[in-house]
This record gives sequence, structure tokens and C-alpha cells, in this order.
Amino acid sequence: MKLAVVGGGSTYTPELIDGFARLRGELPLSEIALVDPDERRLATVGGMARRMLARAGHPAALTTSNRVEDGVAGAAAVLLQLRVGGQAARNVDETLPLECGCVGQETTGAGGLAKALRTVPVVLDIAEKVRAHAPGAWIVDFTNPVGIVTRALLDAGHRAIGLCNVAIGFQRRFAALLGVAPERIALGHVGLNHLTWERSVLLDGVDVLPRLLDEHGEGIAESVGLPVELVRHLRAVPSYYLRYFYEHDRVVAEQRTSPSRAAEVAAMESALLEMYADPAVDTKPDLLNKRGGAFYSEAAVALVASLMGDRRDVQVVNTRNNGTLPFLDDDAVIEVPAAVGAAGAVPLPVEPVEPLYRGLIAHVSAYESLALEAALDGGEDRVRDALLAHPLVGQASLADGLAARLVEANRAFLPWAVAR
Amino acid sequence: MKLAVVGGGSTYTPELIDGFARLRGELPLSEIALVDPDERRLATVGGMARRMLARAGHPAALTTSNRVEDGVAGAAAVLLQLRVGGQAARNVDETLPLECGCVGQETTGAGGLAKALRTVPVVLDIAEKVRAHAPGAWIVDFTNPVGIVTRALLDAGHRAIGLCNVAIGFQRRFAALLGVAPERIALGHVGLNHLTWERSVLLDGVDVLPRLLDEHGEGIAESVGLPVELVRHLRAVPSYYLRYFYEHDRVVAEQRTSPSRAAEVAAMESALLEMYADPAVDTKPDLLNKRGGAFYSEAAVALVASLMGDRRDVQVVNTRNNGTLPFLDDDAVIEVPAAVGAAGAVPLPVEPVEPLYRGLIAHVSAYESLALEAALDGGEDRVRDALLAHPLVGQASLADGLAARLVEANRAFLPWAVAR
Amino acid sequence: MKLAVVGGGSTYTPELIDGFARLRGELPLSEIALVDPDERRLATVGGMARRMLARAGHPAALTTSNRVEDGVAGAAAVLLQLRVGGQAARNVDETLPLECGCVGQETTGAGGLAKALRTVPVVLDIAEKVRAHAPGAWIVDFTNPVGIVTRALLDAGHRAIGLCNVAIGFQRRFAALLGVAPERIALGHVGLNHLTWERSVLLDGVDVLPRLLDEHGEGIAESVGLPVELVRHLRAVPSYYLRYFYEHDRVVAEQRTSPSRAAEVAAMESALLEMYADPAVDTKPDLLNKRGGAFYSEAAVALVASLMGDRRDVQVVNTRNNGTLPFLDDDAVIEVPAAVGAAGAVPLPVEPVEPLYRGLIAHVSAYESLALEAALDGGEDRVRDALLAHPLVGQASLADGLAARLVEANRAFLPWAVAR
Amino acid sequence: MKLAVVGGGSTYTPELIDGFARLRGELPLSEIALVDPDERRLATVGGMARRMLARAGHPAALTTSNRVEDGVAGAAAVLLQLRVGGQAARNVDETLPLECGCVGQETTGAGGLAKALRTVPVVLDIAEKVRAHAPGAWIVDFTNPVGIVTRALLDAGHRAIGLCNVAIGFQRRFAALLGVAPERIALGHVGLNHLTWERSVLLDGVDVLPRLLDEHGEGIAESVGLPVELVRHLRAVPSYYLRYFYEHDRVVAEQRTSPSRAAEVAAMESALLEMYADPAVDTKPDLLNKRGGAFYSEAAVALVASLMGDRRDVQVVNTRNNGTLPFLDDDAVIEVPAAVGAAGAVPLPVEPVEPLYRGLIAHVSAYESLALEAALDGGEDRVRDALLAHPLVGQASLADGLAARLVEANRAFLPWAVAR
Repeated sequence: MKLAVVGGGSTYTPELIDGFARLRGELPLSEIALVDPDERRLATVGGMARRMLARAGHPAALTTSNRVEDGVAGAAAVLLQLRVGGQAARNVDETLPLECGCVGQETTGAGGLAKALRTVPVVLDIAEKVRAHAPGAWIVDFTNPVGIVTRALLDAGHRAIGLCNVAIGFQRRFAALLGVAPERIALGHVGLNHLTWERSVLLDGVDVLPRLLDEHGEGIAESVGLPVELVRHLRAVPSYYLRYFYEHDRVVAEQRTSPSRAAEVAAMESALLEMYADPAVDTKPDLLNKRGGAFYSEAAVALVASLMGDRRDVQVVNTRNNGTLPFLDDDAVIEVPAAVGAAGAVPLPVEPVEPLYRGLIAHVSAYESLALEAALDGGEDRVRDALLAHPLVGQASLADGLAARLVEANRAFLPWAVAR
Repeated sequence: MKLAVVGGGSTYTPELIDGFARLRGELPLSEIALVDPDERRLATVGGMARRMLARAGHPAALTTSNRVEDGVAGAAAVLLQLRVGGQAARNVDETLPLECGCVGQETTGAGGLAKALRTVPVVLDIAEKVRAHAPGAWIVDFTNPVGIVTRALLDAGHRAIGLCNVAIGFQRRFAALLGVAPERIALGHVGLNHLTWERSVLLDGVDVLPRLLDEHGEGIAESVGLPVELVRHLRAVPSYYLRYFYEHDRVVAEQRTSPSRAAEVAAMESALLEMYADPAVDTKPDLLNKRGGAFYSEAAVALVASLMGDRRDVQVVNTRNNGTLPFLDDDAVIEVPAAVGAAGAVPLPVEPVEPLYRGLIAHVSAYESLALEAALDGGEDRVRDALLAHPLVGQASLADGLAARLVEANRAFLPWAVAR
Repeated sequence: MKLAVVGGGSTYTPELIDGFARLRGELPLSEIALVDPDERRLATVGGMARRMLARAGHPAALTTSNRVEDGVAGAAAVLLQLRVGGQAARNVDETLPLECGCVGQETTGAGGLAKALRTVPVVLDIAEKVRAHAPGAWIVDFTNPVGIVTRALLDAGHRAIGLCNVAIGFQRRFAALLGVAPERIALGHVGLNHLTWERSVLLDGVDVLPRLLDEHGEGIAESVGLPVELVRHLRAVPSYYLRYFYEHDRVVAEQRTSPSRAAEVAAMESALLEMYADPAVDTKPDLLNKRGGAFYSEAAVALVASLMGDRRDVQVVNTRNNGTLPFLDDDAVIEVPAAVGAAGAVPLPVEPVEPLYRGLIAHVSAYESLALEAALDGGEDRVRDALLAHPLVGQASLADGLAARLVEANRAFLPWAVAR
Repeated sequence: MKLAVVGGGSTYTPELIDGFARLRGELPLSEIALVDPDERRLATVGGMARRMLARAGHPAALTTSNRVEDGVAGAAAVLLQLRVGGQAARNVDETLPLECGCVGQETTGAGGLAKALRTVPVVLDIAEKVRAHAPGAWIVDFTNPVGIVTRALLDAGHRAIGLCNVAIGFQRRFAALLGVAPERIALGHVGLNHLTWERSVLLDGVDVLPRLLDEHGEGIAESVGLPVELVRHLRAVPSYYLRYFYEHDRVVAEQRTSPSRAAEVAAMESALLEMYADPAVDTKPDLLNKRGGAFYSEAAVALVASLMGDRRDVQVVNTRNNGTLPFLDDDAVIEVPAAVGAAGAVPLPVEPVEPLYRGLIAHVSAYESLALEAALDGGEDRVRDALLAHPLVGQASLADGLAARLVEANRAFLPWAVAR
């Protein structure tokens, strides 16, 4: 079985390879193809990946290509982990909204919209090549904003599932706090990508979330950057990204007085690439754990294994709503536990969602549909509408100012805006 | 037919009486009962009302009472137009949220929540007395926040309809711009009370909104306090209250540098009461038009006439959703055109709502259900949840600060908080 | 020797009495007269004071009066520690500016101006009575804003000195950190009341501030509410009140989400008065230490002792600039170490002040002269000018909004605004 | 007489040439040397300048050079009108502070500091070359921030005067409103560069400012971007740059929703350079008037003529304080009317400055001395101090965040930061 990784030159790739090696029993791969337009990165990261596989005695061939058509040809699954515009574009996502008093983040708010505008056309183009050269292959999207990108893929008729490491991260963290194997933990995870709450934590089917909050509330609250009083009061654990909503002004104040995450990551990436280039290095460096993708390879391996092996086990993924959350469109993409098998993901039923979460989910889901329209059809007007529809912007003059800046700053990446 | 007006000592009452007099053919009344706990106001306003009826040769008896039980006894319809805490409490609604950087307004945001907390228990108490002393009477609620108050009444099993003068104001204004009789205009009005958009303006069945925006866009935009570019871009007219969302920060900046509306209205009310006390005055003073309730009496007369006369004509009212907007709960109260007859209001079907409006409507509707819970069950925690669920607050530390202040400042009006 | 305390019904008074008792060798008093318009408080606090003196075996008579003329008659020194409008007015000082996005504090910014407007006329009236009934007596002012009040007194030709407990607090704290007697510590304290920096800390004449910052930087920074990096970088310790400048927006954010200090203090005062009313209580309660006036009695005793005894020792006081800080008017009141004797206070020479402090001092001193004009001559225009001149306001529309609100909210205390 | 213009490739130069041509009687020039490192611009603008002189029949030779040493050799006066980093750096000055919630402007606040840091080293380097190759020549500085740059030149012992077109602009505007010749108008202009107030407007020695404000208050207020109530209340006309103080938050809100001035100017410059390149164009284009330097050539000609011709007439210039404003250091540079002759500028006596202006002037002057230190000695710490000393920043965490960003964004232009 061949698996292709588009964006394979990413510094994340060794994380993935490490997982493929550790979990080879779960996912028997004969070829891993790394695809990336950046040939220097591809050579460096490809070399590192080969050394890691060799050290692990993994039998798969590691190939590299700078052409999607070649790289994906014949693959059974294609992972998307690309970043259009690199850390430089991300830096703009994180600082430009601040000029208008809004939070700067690359997956939500104005920055998330900018990323969607840059990413959707590129991903759809890749997906067409997958359709042509690897018909029937599953596309697994890690590329943010995962919810919007996954919906773009599904709307275009592709076999796609979106994946994020937030849920698996909670599962592992809660398991560690409880001192049990992660497999025994199931999450009552609900919402949209990067807008989710854990409403229950089942240990062998029994909800232990109240106990976790009683005993470890401070640590859990700190890990998601929210006041412990809030988390205890909710009796639910919001994801870290809810912080951009629940503590918006505080985050803006912090961002105003500190360097961007993109700047930090860019420095980290330089260091990582230097390590990967060292022919003596054949294990994942510790530094990679600070890069932010913890348990990403576990989640990826599990998802691909279930899709290929028709395991029908439950995993948290991004897929069509289809009535799961009745207050959203059937076509909306949601992030919930789903049974994953050869036919894809089928969401499990979800307890009615409390108004406190439902209002925000509905608001952001409506934004996502406008963001997707803007990404597909272009035009500063559509960008402005999406911003006006976002609960973190929502104001006419802010939407005007942000739309103009965001289009200007991302012009090189917007097919409909390039020709000026 | 007897009609009772609870809050009959309001300075608005002469507006209502003026309508009853002008439109007596539509609504044949034999008794108008004004009910108010403030006996001085009741005497002044009652005297004025009697002189107005006499001048108009209207045959109805005008009675006054400071006991709800007496005033509503035997009435066919009861109008609610009360204000718990008067202009002083309103002043707190308008200034307290500013301390936390939020817009100060008595029907939306934190101020609207405070008003709901004060009002719901009082209105439910009155409604029980109506049930006992005027069984079968319709309760028409003008008291803000109309959406939440109407839902409270319906949830408690009362025969209630909510009414607001925003829609009739648009109808009259558009008719004037077009130079036609208001009856020929039907509005594509949709949303929640004080969160509505006119998506079409039918003149004899033909949508003239595009023409209105082309020819009178500037004036229309100015009348709702929004940029004309926005209104033209939307091809829809948001109500004035959308300004608190679409121009939130600008409104806060204005409010920070100008006196509250409550202070202005309090001054106006003093002047009005002085005029009403003058035995020579028997017509509605011009000043009353600045008080804010334009066309309120026309709307009230039409609604009561249709309820009593089973006219089944179309009016914009607040009533149960029942699937009209599929993305909201059936139990939610919405503000849309409805056929009004003896059995109450039946919403007309509504075209699918655009995501740009739908997201905000869903968010605020979820808030409203939490606001109602807080009003019914009390507790600072519930107040905080409602604030956290409101798109104009939405932040944990703001919700904390506002909840504490708002409970403290309104303690005297909150049954569950009084006993400290 | 008779000493009168105007505002003697304050809950602070037992702190003062405790000092008179402990330090009786330094300041031989034959009569202590408490003056206060609030007779209930006067009785309670007066009783407590008598019990404290009795327990200590202090020979002074303790008299009380609700008339200034009587209370000050024949006194050698008069202490002013009053609060016009009580905690209720203070609460307005602390919350009203927040409505305009400004810090709410009763001694600086808009709140400090409000306090000055209320206080200056009352203090000048008292001072005239002192002139008539206790000619030659020294007036020691603790009443905030001390800088403006002291200048008002000096401009009117009174024998006045302003005193604050910030400097003595630093002296005691540094002595404790060093494990030495406070007398061995001399401060390089410079600025205006509540706008000061400790530029050196001499232990027996040697500057130990660098050592203090190295060894105890974190604790010192925390005690003044500022980042330790800032304090270490400055090589100077700003007073706690500089926090309202150096961390303005952070303080506003905190104030928006927490109750006012006035509310806390009002609760404390209730508890204290209850304790004072208990005939069994004859020692200063621990709770008083949280009230905020630490070492106030030590400072007061020392100052009065030096004025009476012509000791010519060095104390930090508020007095005329007279060229000490060459960039300020001679008439400005500054807070610096001065030699205090029978002729009053003579500032010691001061090292040139660094531009980083000088700019802010000059700005606030200019504000203070406009604040005093507004307090003396009245008028919303003068209030607005003072706000426009304050570095924490400084904007025209903010000054407009604040001036209107502040005059309205304090109308009852403003002689020139009362008659509306 | 030879006059050199450093930054001669600026699009402003034709404005200057136009003035030299029109006012040739006042200033007899034999050579005009344009100096600029950008040879393409120099060729284009030099050609345009030659055509303009030819058309006017002006006898001066027009020479160009990309080396300062050559261009200034033998000059009697050297004009500095350069912009280090061009419009791109200016764009950073105007947008970067917005990320931290501060006003973005290239001559005041954080943006002005950035410009000072870039500019001072370059100007001092040029001045050394003037000293070597044109000993005794006057250096006239138009380069912003004029106050700081002029002080840098004076501190280094150069014969320098700073010039700005704000004052001459007011003179011309007031003359036009009054319908009189500009020469009959003298201004009571006081403050620091870009921080000035017109306290009187003498027409033939009589103050007509009250009349101007009565009759033309609205227009005057609009021209400086301030509320007419404020201007009338002050009985003085603040310069347009006071808007960044008096209306700070409003300006930030505007800047957040509109493109930067730098972006506008960059577009204008392209158009101007295209016009200048046209061999048929030999007169100043109308577009140049929108570029912002109105009456700049008149001011320059008058100043150089007085310096060369020892005219000892009164002009508003930037020069040493020397006791003119007693609340500032003697070494500070101020902007006031001065008698200008062969020995330089001697400030006229100035009426005592009102506290409302004095506080702000003192604060900004202290900032300027720290800004100059930072520009000369470098280091992020000094940058932070200057920001902390600026009334538009003044907060520790803002100063931290801004210092880091500003150094990072301007690294290429900061001699002490380049080598990373």
C-alpha cells in the first residue's frame, strides 16, 4: 500500500515517519511518497525520513517528488499537510488583524479566513490530480482551517476526511492524568474544528470528567489557557482555541506585547532543518515536540488504518453533519466522534447541544460557509461578508478595513486577485 | 369590549388613546382600563386620556386602577407596556455595560439582559392575574425585551403575542418614500425582535427594495445608523438595533462621550407629564413623537382588531418559531410576518435565511433561551452564562465582571437576589 | 499641647491614637480633639479612642465636637483626614471613569480630579476656621489628592504641609528587607504626591538600592504592581500609583472585571465600626491594617513633633517647589525629602531628574494647577480643561464625556454646580 | 551662491525649484546641486528641474551628484530633505504601532521614534561631510522629525536650523481668510515641531484670532481635524498634529479601517515621477500640491535669504530653547518665531505658556531627549525608554512590545542593530 504526503517537505514529516515506524503493525505500508514543491526541503526531509525508516527496519520505500501527479500516482491514501505561503504568510495572519484590534491567529478570525483563501484553491487543485492519478484514494486533510478545507473537498465530490490533533491530545492527556491506557478513554467531543468542547470523558464507558475537573481542574484549565472557574462551571473542557473567543481581549493584549508564533516557529524550523540535514541524525529530535503536532502521527495512522482496513472504530474526525447537529445545515462539516470504515466516517449520535455552545457553533458555521464562498469565487466583497459574519469581527468598518488589508497582503496567493 | 393597559400611567398612553380615537371604526371599545401602581401618574395620564376621548367623541369609558386584578377583570385584551425600575433602572442598563467596554442599551447586550431579569417575573405575575380575572383574554406584549418576555409568557401557557413598532415604522417610511398608501406595502421582515432585516419590500406584490435603495439609499441608511455602502451591499435593510452589532465599537465610543438616552427620556417625561396635567390640553403633544413610539398605536389597534375580529390578515409579530426558521428551536420566539386571527398568529413561510444573518440570529436566539432561564431561576451563575452566550459579550472575564455589577445594581428588582 | 483631627470620625483614627500612645515620648499631647460632622461615628470612634488612651495610660484628654470652630480652638496642630462624600462618592470616582475607558482611581486621573473638586472647597473652609480659632496652628493634610489640597492651602496663605504614607512605607519595607532599624534608611524620593520614584535608598549614607533590586527585585516589583524587568531596568522603584500610568490598560481591564476598592473598603468600615462600638475593645484591630494607612501614625507623629519641636530633621513631605525641581513652577507643590522645623519644610537639593520621570512630572504638575483652578472657580469648562491636561485622559471627546458625567455625579458636592 | 539639496531626487524638489524661480530676486543662486543616492530619480528630477529653470530664465546651473562630498562642496547652504527607507519604511511607521493599539504616524509616537532612529545617523554623517567640504555652510533641516534631527545637529556642533511648513501654512491660510497679504500676518506660534499652537494672529500688530475663530471657526477647526468647540474654547489653533493627541482613539479607529498615508503617497510619487520624466513638462504639476509640502519653497527661500543676507527678520524656526521656554532645558529645540540673520536664529520672547499646553510640551520634550539618545547610542533598552517616556505610549508592556517590533522592522536601517 502506497501513501502520499503532500507537503512532505514539512518539518512535521519526521513526526509522521516516526509514527509509521512505531505503528507499522497497524498500517502496513510499502511506499511512502513525499511531495513538495520545495526541492531543497524535500531532499533534507526525505533523507531524514529514509534514515528513520532504515533505523526502524521499516520495509517501505521512501520516494520524493516535486510534482503532485507523480507523487500521488497509485496511492491508496493522500495526506495533505501543506502551508501555502509558509511562515511568512502565517506571520501576516497573526499580526495584520492586530492592526484592527482583532485577535491574530492562523486558524480562526481574520487570520483563519486569510489562510482559507490561500489554501482552498491549492488543495482543490491537488485533489483534482489525486482524482486523476489515484482514483479512489482517500484524502486526509490536516491542512488548516480543516473544517473549511474539508468542506471544500467534499463539495467538490472528493473522498475526504478532515483530521486534527486536538481530540487525540485530550484523550492522551486525560489518560495520563488517570493513569490508564488511552484506548480506554472515549471523548464526548462536539463542535467544529478548533471550536470544540469535551462534554464527557468516558473511562470504560463511565463519565470521569467531573472527577478529572475536581482533581485536576487547575492543570486542565491551564492547558487550555482558560480560568479554572470557567472550566469547572461549564463542567466541560473547551479546546485551547476557544480562548480566542472566551478571552479575546486578553489575548489581543498579550499579542500586542509579544512576538508572533510564526516568528517562533520559523526559528524552530531553521533549527529542525539543520538537524535533519545531519546524516548522523536518524531519530525524531526532542525539539519537534515543541513544534505543536503532538500525537499527529498516531491520529493519522489510526485514521488511514480504519479507512483501509474497514475497522469501523470510533475516531474524532471532520465530516458532513447530515443531521447530527440539527441546528446546522446537513452540508456543514462538523468535528465529532464517528465510526470510520471503508465507506468513510459516520457520525455517532450527539446529545442535544447546550445553548451556550450551540449559539457560537451556529454562528461560526455560518461564517465558514461564507468563507468557503469567498475562497472559491473570490472578490473583496465576499471576503468582507465572511468577516462580517464572524463573531470575532462582526463589525462593518472592521470588516472593511480587514478585507482591504488582507486581500492586499495575500494578493500573491489569491488567484482572483493576482492580476493587478 | 374592554381593553386593559398595564403600565397605563406611561407617558406613551396618550399615543395609544390617540390611535383608539382615530381608528375607532376598526376597534370598537366600550372600556379602556389603565392600570399602574403609580397613582399620581395614573391620575395625570388618566385625566389626559379622558379629555382626549371626550374631544374625539369616543364612547368608551376610561377607568383607572392601581390593582392589576381589578383593572384587567373582564378584559378581552390586555396590553403590557410597563418598565420595571423606570428611567433610573434604564440609565443603569445604558451606562453600566460601558464600565466594562460593552455597548449600553436597554434591549440588547448586557443592558437588555438586565431588563429581562427585572421584567420577566413581574410580567408573569401579571399574566397569572389575567388568567384568573380575564380568562381567555389575549396578552399583547410591548414590554422589552419583547422576544424574551413573549417566550416567557408562551412557555407559561398564556395566550400571548409580542409586538414591536420597528416593522410598522419601516412600512410607513417606505410608503412615504414611494408616495403610496401603507396598506399596499408588505415587508420581507425576518429575525428576532430587535435583530431583524427587511429583505424585500413588496408594493402590490412587486419587490421595490432595489429601487428604494438606489433612489433613497442614503436616507434609509442614515435612518438605521449604518453606512450606505453596507446597506446597498446587503440589498437588505437591517433594523436600527443591528447598529449595536455592526458598529459596536463606534457606538461605545459615542456613548462614552455623550449622556444616556435614559437621561434624555427622563427629561422628556417630566415635560410630558406637566403638559398632561394641564386641564386645557386634550390633544397629543408634538413632543410625544420624539419619545420613540411612532405608529405604536396603529400597530396595537390592528393587532387587537385582528385577534378579536379573526381578520387573518398579515402583521409582523413575535410568536413561536414552530419550524419557520429551521435552524432554530421550535420553541424559540421569532419576529416575522404572520396571519393573525382569533386563534393567534401563524407565521408565513420564510425564504431560506442567508448565512450572514442566520449565524447571528442563531447566536442571539441561544442567548435568549439562557437569558430566560436566568430570569426564571435566578443566580449569578445563570446571569454569567447568558452574558457569555451573547455575541456582544462572549468573554469570560467580561461576563464575570458584568454579572456581578448587573446583579448588584438591580438587586432590588430581582426576586432571587433581594434577600441579602 | 492640643492637637485636633478633622475627620476624626474616620475608621483610621484608632491607627492615629495607637501612634500617639506608642510614641508619646516624641509628642507630648495634653488634648486630642476629634472633629466630625457625623455624630454617630464620632461617638463610636471617640469612645474607642478614649479606651485606647486609657489602656496606654496616656494622660491626654480626648474631646469630640461636630463643629470645626470648637474642635480646633487653641490647637497647635490640626490634622485633616476627611473624605467628602464618603465611600459612595469614592465608588463613583472608581467606576465612572471606566464608562469612558479610563482608569478609575480616587487620587489620580478623572477620579482624582472629582475628589479634588469635592475636597478643596471644604478644606479651605475648615482652614479659615483654623485661622480664626487657632491662629498660628500648623495644618497637616492627609486628605487626598494631597498635592492639590496642599497647594490650595498654601495659595490661600495657610501654614500647611501635606503628608502621605507612601515614603514611610518604603522606608519601613526596605529596612525590613535589610534587617536594620528604619532610622538608618534615607530615601531618594522625588516627584509629586502619588507620582514618585525612589531613586536611591541610603543605609547609613550608602546607596543599597542596587543590592535591594538584585536580591529582592521580585518582591519589590510585586509590591508596587509592576513587572520586575521594568523596576530593575529603571534602577528605581516607582510608587504603586505609577501603575495607573505604566500599566494603564491592564489596570482598566482588571477594574472592568472586579468590584471597586470603595465597595471593599465600605464593607471593612462597617466591620471596624462594629468593633469600635464594643466597649470591651481597647486595642487597634488587625483588620485596620488592611484598610490601607500603614505607618500613617508614625509619619504624623514625626511630622508634628518636628514642627512643634523645631527638630529640623529630614522627612518626606509635600511642600512648595521653590526651585527644587527647576522644570516646575516655584509655586508647584512637590513631594521630596525636606528639613522640617518650626518654620516649616525646606526641601533638600535634588539630583537632576531623568527625562523619563521629568516629562511625566511636568505633565501632571500642569494638570494639578488646572485642577486647582477648576476646584476654586468651578465651571464644566475648567473641569474639561483639567481632564484634557491629564496624561491619562488627554483627549477632547473623552474630556467632554467625562466632564459632563463627573459634574453630574458630584453635583451635590460642588458649590458652583449645586443650584440647578 | 551655491545651494545644495540633499535628497534632491525627492518628488518635492520641483516645488523647491519653482520657489527658487519665482523668488529669484530674494535669493540669487548661481548653482543648485541636487544630491541623491538614487541615480535614476536624480536623473529624472534633475532633468525636470533644469527644464523648470530654463523656462523661468533662471541663470543658475543645475548639477546633480550621488556623492554628498561632491554635491555639497563649496555650498553656502545645504537643505536636507531626505527620507531614509522611503515610503516602505514610512508604511511600517504608520501600521506597526496599530498592532499595539497606538496611533501610526511617521513623525510622532512610535512611528516618529522609528523615523528618528533611522534618520539621525544618516543626517549626522551627511553633516560631517558638509563640515569637511563646505565649512561654514548653514544646514537647513526639513527632514522629520525636525525637532530631534535639529537637536542632533546642534549637539554635534553644526550650524543648523530646522524648518517646517506648518507655520507658513497657517500664515497663508489666515491671510487668505482675511483677504490680506501674508506679510502683514505674524503668528503667536509656540511649542515643539509638530506640537504647536497658534495663540495669536497679528494683522499689522493687532490680534485678529478671536475674529477669525468667530467668523471662520468651523473651517479652521476642520483644517486641523479637531472639533470646532475645542478650538473656540482654547482661543488658539492647535496644529494638525495635535489631533494625534487630542483625538488619539478616534484616529486609531480611522486608521484601522483605512489604508496608510504611505500607500497613498507611494502611488502619487509614481505618477509624479512619470510626469517629471516627460521632456515636455516644465512646470510644477497640480498633483504636487496634494503631496503635502505647501509653501515649503517660500519658507526655504525666506530662511536661506535671511541667513545669507543677514536680514534679521522674524520667521518660525526650530532652534535652541536657551531659556525662551523656562520650563524646558536650555538645550532643548523649540519651534517659535525667531529673528534670523547671519548669526542664526534668536527666539523672540514668548508669553508664559498656559499649563494646558505646557504639560504636554514638557512631556514630549523629555521624550525627544531620550529618542535622541536612542538614535545616537542604540540598544532596544533605550528605544523602550523613549517609548515609555512618550505620552502616546507611556505603558510598560506597550513599550516592550513596540520596541521589539520596531527594532526588528527597522533593523536594516539601524547601525547598532544591523549585525545580527
